[in-house]
Amino acid sequence: MSFLQGIAASSGIAIAKAYRLVEPDLSFEKKTIEKVDSEVERFEAAIAQSKSELEMIRDNARENLGADKAAIFEAHLLVLSDPELLNPIKDKVKSDKVNAEFALKETADMFVSMFESMDNEYMRERAADIRDVTKRVLSHLLGVKIVNPSMISEEVVVVAEDLTPSDTAQLNRQFVKGFTTDIGGRTSHSAIMARSLEIPAVVGTKTVTRDIENGDLVIVDGLKGEVHINPTPELVEQYKKATEDFEAQKAEWAKLKNEHTYSADGHQVELVANIGTPNDLEGVMNNGGEGVGLYRTEFLYMGRDELPTEEEQFESYKAVLEGLEGKPVVVRTLDIGGDKELPYLKLPKEMNPFLGFRAIRLCLEEKEIFRTQLRALLRASTYGNLKIMFPMIATLDEFRQAKAMLEEEKAKLQGEGIEVSDKIEVGIMVEIPSTAVLADQFAKEVDFFSIGTNDLIQYTMAADRMNERVSYLYQPYNPSILRLVKMVIDAAHKEGKWTGMCGEMAGDETAIPLLLGLGLDEFSMSATSILKARSQIRYLNKAEMEKLAAEALQKSTTEEVIEMVTAATSKN
Amino acid sequence: MSFLQGIAASSGIAIAKAYRLVEPDLSFEKKTIEKVDSEVERFEAAIAQSKSELEMIRDNARENLGADKAAIFEAHLLVLSDPELLNPIKDKVKSDKVNAEFALKETADMFVSMFESMDNEYMRERAADIRDVTKRVLSHLLGVKIVNPSMISEEVVVVAEDLTPSDTAQLNRQFVKGFTTDIGGRTSHSAIMARSLEIPAVVGTKTVTRDIENGDLVIVDGLKGEVHINPTPELVEQYKKATEDFEAQKAEWAKLKNEHTYSADGHQVELVANIGTPNDLEGVMNNGGEGVGLYRTEFLYMGRDELPTEEEQFESYKAVLEGLEGKPVVVRTLDIGGDKELPYLKLPKEMNPFLGFRAIRLCLEEKEIFRTQLRALLRASTYGNLKIMFPMIATLDEFRQAKAMLEEEKAKLQGEGIEVSDKIEVGIMVEIPSTAVLADQFAKEVDFFSIGTNDLIQYTMAADRMNERVSYLYQPYNPSILRLVKMVIDAAHKEGKWTGMCGEMAGDETAIPLLLGLGLDEFSMSATSILKARSQIRYLNKAEMEKLAAEALQKSTTEEVIEMVTAATSKN
Repeated sequence: MSFLQGIAASSGIAIAKAYRLVEPDLSFEKKTIEKVDSEVERFEAAIAQSKSELEMIRDNARENLGADKAAIFEAHLLVLSDPELLNPIKDKVKSDKVNAEFALKETADMFVSMFESMDNEYMRERAADIRDVTKRVLSHLLGVKIVNPSMISEEVVVVAEDLTPSDTAQLNRQFVKGFTTDIGGRTSHSAIMARSLEIPAVVGTKTVTRDIENGDLVIVDGLKGEVHINPTPELVEQYKKATEDFEAQKAEWAKLKNEHTYSADGHQVELVANIGTPNDLEGVMNNGGEGVGLYRTEFLYMGRDELPTEEEQFESYKAVLEGLEGKPVVVRTLDIGGDKELPYLKLPKEMNPFLGFRAIRLCLEEKEIFRTQLRALLRASTYGNLKIMFPMIATLDEFRQAKAMLEEEKAKLQGEGIEVSDKIEVGIMVEIPSTAVLADQFAKEVDFFSIGTNDLIQYTMAADRMNERVSYLYQPYNPSILRLVKMVIDAAHKEGKWTGMCGEMAGDETAIPLLLGLGLDEFSMSATSILKARSQIRYLNKAEMEKLAAEALQKSTTEEVIEMVTAATSKN
Repeated sequence: MSFLQGIAASSGIAIAKAYRLVEPDLSFEKKTIEKVDSEVERFEAAIAQSKSELEMIRDNARENLGADKAAIFEAHLLVLSDPELLNPIKDKVKSDKVNAEFALKETADMFVSMFESMDNEYMRERAADIRDVTKRVLSHLLGVKIVNPSMISEEVVVVAEDLTPSDTAQLNRQFVKGFTTDIGGRTSHSAIMARSLEIPAVVGTKTVTRDIENGDLVIVDGLKGEVHINPTPELVEQYKKATEDFEAQKAEWAKLKNEHTYSADGHQVELVANIGTPNDLEGVMNNGGEGVGLYRTEFLYMGRDELPTEEEQFESYKAVLEGLEGKPVVVRTLDIGGDKELPYLKLPKEMNPFLGFRAIRLCLEEKEIFRTQLRALLRASTYGNLKIMFPMIATLDEFRQAKAMLEEEKAKLQGEGIEVSDKIEVGIMVEIPSTAVLADQFAKEVDFFSIGTNDLIQYTMAADRMNERVSYLYQPYNPSILRLVKMVIDAAHKEGKWTGMCGEMAGDETAIPLLLGLGLDEFSMSATSILKARSQIRYLNKAEMEKLAAEALQKSTTEEVIEMVTAATSKN
């Protein structure tokens, strides 16, 4: 029996036999080729095979994991269609009379090292894409099978150096009970995928592929970040008990599925879900969501070669509105740009994309893209309870422009005899400090606020949340953040409007008591967090939380706030 | 007579004969070379000549323009020492037996197009550096003289497509009365240099090199952005009159040089200067500065191959403190990282450098760099009135860490028997929204605040101020910014502390009435703006400005604020 400490990447416990996902042998010899034309054909065949394989993986990912997760395979497919990569390879085969494997490897390596040498995150990701794609094409050229996790047919814990997005997308939820890797952190691709699939995972163990053999019994403790190899029967029993407790707790939570959400002293709030596509609706319903607090429409625009038509959008919006059966659906208009790219829009690269031309800034400039979306939304409005929300609003002027365009499209549609709901609320994301500080002015004109804490925190602290060197400044409980949240909620209430929150913070166990105390009306989170949050709120007393929140606002550091909340809530 | 409208880039009026700064002919033939070794030597000689020329330009720029402006030539010198560029050129001469001009051009073009294709601002700048340097080396290889603005020996207006930093650095203030270019905007290199040199300039005229011949009489109106070619004698007279008025006004302002700064109703504020090096002291004294509100120490670290020693730093700080003769000097500790790089620190490139690892974040990690600076400052403290200020403070914890390191170094020095002033005030830059929002907590622990509006505005509005597509969001008069400024000033006053401002806004004519009304204690600006600001404040009534500011805080947009301030102050 041995033990490894890693990073808890996805919660839950898995106990099963190890399945090593090892790299296939992709080595080859350099050869001189006389029939270069047929060698080029062989290369093109491998490209075609790789493409259809990737399309399959992408479709599989889109269905099981959502469009955002599938986007990486789109990037891979783009690489496979890039003449700037493919032509030099074919030219090399012809001019140097070498085998396709050699030409591919040489050319790809050159691009990879060129991109990596740039020491720029975006370029390094492109390098990773090319490396991933090269392996796939090589495997087809060599007739070697890349170990395929989708072939797994018994319950296992997958053990790997790292899991590529392609690997993770092929994991079968039914058989893969957990996984553990040598490298990676909480925000690595594999960790994010694991949470989305609800598969327990421990990453960053450093040596798990060295320490575990195929068939070893493995416990993956995704709560504590521990991996136990060939554990004693006692430990297995202990973990089985822990798993049962966890399941029992989940079963207890599940009883709240059809309940509304009340605090111990009877104050009602709304718990709603963040979704990306109509496919996510089932999760919302199964987890007792009281509606959708954030429908991220950008996934409609991703993983394709051109903008979605008004009709395509209309169908998606209609499906979501109908699926929610009259429950509220807050749709965020297109939030693209910055780190979220649409290759077909050909936006220029920016020095600081998080402070750049994105979301509403782009929509107010690219008016036709925006108007098409607004028309689709307005047409769908009669199929349910639609609320429209504009992202990245920094000034009242931007809101007024966006609202005016919405009104114009509404008038046009009505002029065309098309029915539009008269009850559409129009609100904004509050994710830029200026808007939080000026919330009293905004509250006079918007119907609601939804606080986007992920961005609000990074702008307020001036720290890129994706940058590890400053990630210590991503502080949801910093008193400055809580004060901004309070400004927004108070400003809304003063004008008889409501405030929601759709960042990670809304589903956070430590934040919920404070947010309840600050008066937040609507909490929007991953569907899988809703029941736990509902259970937590039932034990909280709103009046007490108000005092707690008031105290937190007078603290000077994040640490003081956490300490205080922990002390106050552990009494319960 | 004809007329061109361009962009006013640097104020003032110039009337003089045109001097066209045209590109030299750098064309050449590809040649086959037998004696490759002597060709390589010829290339190396051209490199050496280019280097010494660039060093001369750099030193000239450093002296006349300051270390920040000289940094670009450091970048050029680095290119000239880069074996990754030079070796392929020499190899090409040897292996392909071609002339150095051809090998240079081919290789440089490859790098330029590679860097440009990356569609990344940083890489494009590197491409521009290589292109600039290539021209210089080519001119030496070809024995052609690059037109040299430093050769100008009579009063002229320089006419050019664009001015490279090398060109601008060589402009002789005595003879170059103004310039005008085809391309560029208010924030282009040439425009910034012109303002720093106080040379009137109009950029972005599109066609000025086509429309003006050598010797044409030209009026450059840097106030309105107009260029008049061969004007009528009446217009010349009119402009001479305007110039005289402008000079008379400046003479009027100059009378205030030795005055303190009082509002019309007798409220005193302090007008101080932003400086980069001890060389800037003369300007501070000549323009009636009451001290230094921002000494940017990073220039000490730039344009060199290694960190400055404690001794070097001590000498600079001592020079500034002594030069100010007891007037206050606020020294900002190292603000490097982000867009300001030190090649020898080898910091990784970041996705969003403005939200990255910079300033105090870097100093708290790279402790030895920081402690060295603190020791140098403490040792210099007995030579004048030193105040120390930490940049980019986002949390109280960061301030406490920095302050503790300062105290530790102080105790160590005193233990070594070295005298340290007991009156050093220790404050922070307020340039991150979290710090402004939590100013009441900070005010209990700091001795003063200095609001850095350039960064505060870009973070509060979540808009990179260097990004043209979102530059409309750089709104100093946005009510949200004014509210944050008020929070900071009020918090300081409540604890008996003072607040300064050292961003562009502090010297801005429209902002000054509001800042006076909000209670700002210290205004730090370019030395050349001080007398004008002092004159303006003498006509403002503090009590009235308080009402004006209170009204501005209740406005909803920037436009409303500007309208109100303009209406109120034009009454005077």
